[in-house]
Amino acid sequence: MTEINERDRAVFEAGIKLGALYHQFVGTPISMDTANDLERMIEQSAIVQPYVRSISVSIDRGMVQKKQNPTFRYCELEGRMLHVSLQVLYKNTIAYAELAYDEEQDYPLMSIKKIESM
Amino acid sequence: MTEINERDRAVFEAGIKLGALYHQFVGTPISMDTANDLERMIEQSAIVQPYVRSISVSIDRGMVQKKQNPTFRYCELEGRMLHVSLQVLYKNTIAYAELAYDEEQDYPLMSIKKIESM
Amino acid sequence: MTEINERDRAVFEAGIKLGALYHQFVGTPISMDTANDLERMIEQSAIVQPYVRSISVSIDRGMVQKKQNPTFRYCELEGRMLHVSLQVLYKNTIAYAELAYDEEQDYPLMSIKKIESM
Amino acid sequence: MTEINERDRAVFEAGIKLGALYHQFVGTPISMDTANDLERMIEQSAIVQPYVRSISVSIDRGMVQKKQNPTFRYCELEGRMLHVSLQVLYKNTIAYAELAYDEEQDYPLMSIKKIESM
Repeated sequence: MTEINERDRAVFEAGIKLGALYHQFVGTPISMDTANDLERMIEQSAIVQPYVRSISVSIDRGMVQKKQNPTFRYCELEGRMLHVSLQVLYKNTIAYAELAYDEEQDYPLMSIKKIESM
Repeated sequence: MTEINERDRAVFEAGIKLGALYHQFVGTPISMDTANDLERMIEQSAIVQPYVRSISVSIDRGMVQKKQNPTFRYCELEGRMLHVSLQVLYKNTIAYAELAYDEEQDYPLMSIKKIESM
Repeated sequence: MTEINERDRAVFEAGIKLGALYHQFVGTPISMDTANDLERMIEQSAIVQPYVRSISVSIDRGMVQKKQNPTFRYCELEGRMLHVSLQVLYKNTIAYAELAYDEEQDYPLMSIKKIESM
Repeated sequence: MTEINERDRAVFEAGIKLGALYHQFVGTPISMDTANDLERMIEQSAIVQPYVRSISVSIDRGMVQKKQNPTFRYCELEGRMLHVSLQVLYKNTIAYAELAYDEEQDYPLMSIKKIESM
């Protein structure tokens, strides 16, 4: 057992942010026309939270188009539609994390990509 | 017992839309800077759904300011912060519904205000 | 234009409840083992709300099994997995509403089935 | 910059799980009678997910009682009502994490408490 350090905190916060945005926004009604604004809104909801250095959200338009109900022309945001790149800065450590659909496992996978000291 | 009619359908759809947006977006991290975009996003998430004729969402800035964490400068969207005016059009009937904070009952109250035939 | 009546209120409340539970619980991690408890929990979250007379929720086990990730053995609750029968009582009027997956439209359809005066 | 290691993964997964359950369940209608079942349901929704070794959720009954609407006798789950103790096991590393209301900061604080190698 060791002390909790800066690196742990940065990585932990990155996990929190991805878990949070996923379960906050999955289920949101969305169309091809509103996908762009929803991307920006998800980014903003992360940016206001502590330690978020930057975030980029993109929603897979091909999946939206395919999932759109033919009659009603909208669908709901699903986890597998989301691609998120996130940087968390805790003191002098940056954790780079990602949410991306893993086709092989058919799973919206969250992962830590890189950890840096500034 | 009577047949389900156009009026019933318009009123029912109005209820669905208010219940849906409330439970989709409550909990979203929000600041004074992002409140405006979140209002527009909630509107858009309703507009893409069937039978929504118009919607106007406003978030109580006074409550946001008061609820904002002093250290982190953000809070979460609460039901009582929301004021929503919604029109649902089903065939030739318009149902006007509202979500507004009822101070006396300390409750985010949803109500049908008016029903019209076009 | 006419006055809002008891029937309108019953139907409106039924819509609210279905929209609410849908967007509250869609996205919940679920397995074959926890589906039963989640059904009961969704029912309870409705029962505590005003005017709900009764509710029965069932989650399509076939869909859960099919959607379960083969590695991790769980999936997320989707709207199309839900079958809900709801009774709202407002004064002397009962509105019977339903959420059921409409295969033809590939849509989780909410509908008013019956309205009765007691 | 260094390689992502087992410890990082354990800590990251702990963050994901806390962020996820928070934003999935905040907003759920709850009463004194249903709080116990909701605690168990939140635990179950975490247990089905990868790497969760154990979890214990408790909802602050005093806050529920205080927040309950006097007319309708229920309230909505808020983040500050939640106390969660979580253990994540990734390979041979256990991360102990917690969500607890921090009264001083008036904030539902998530933290890593301990990291152990088995």
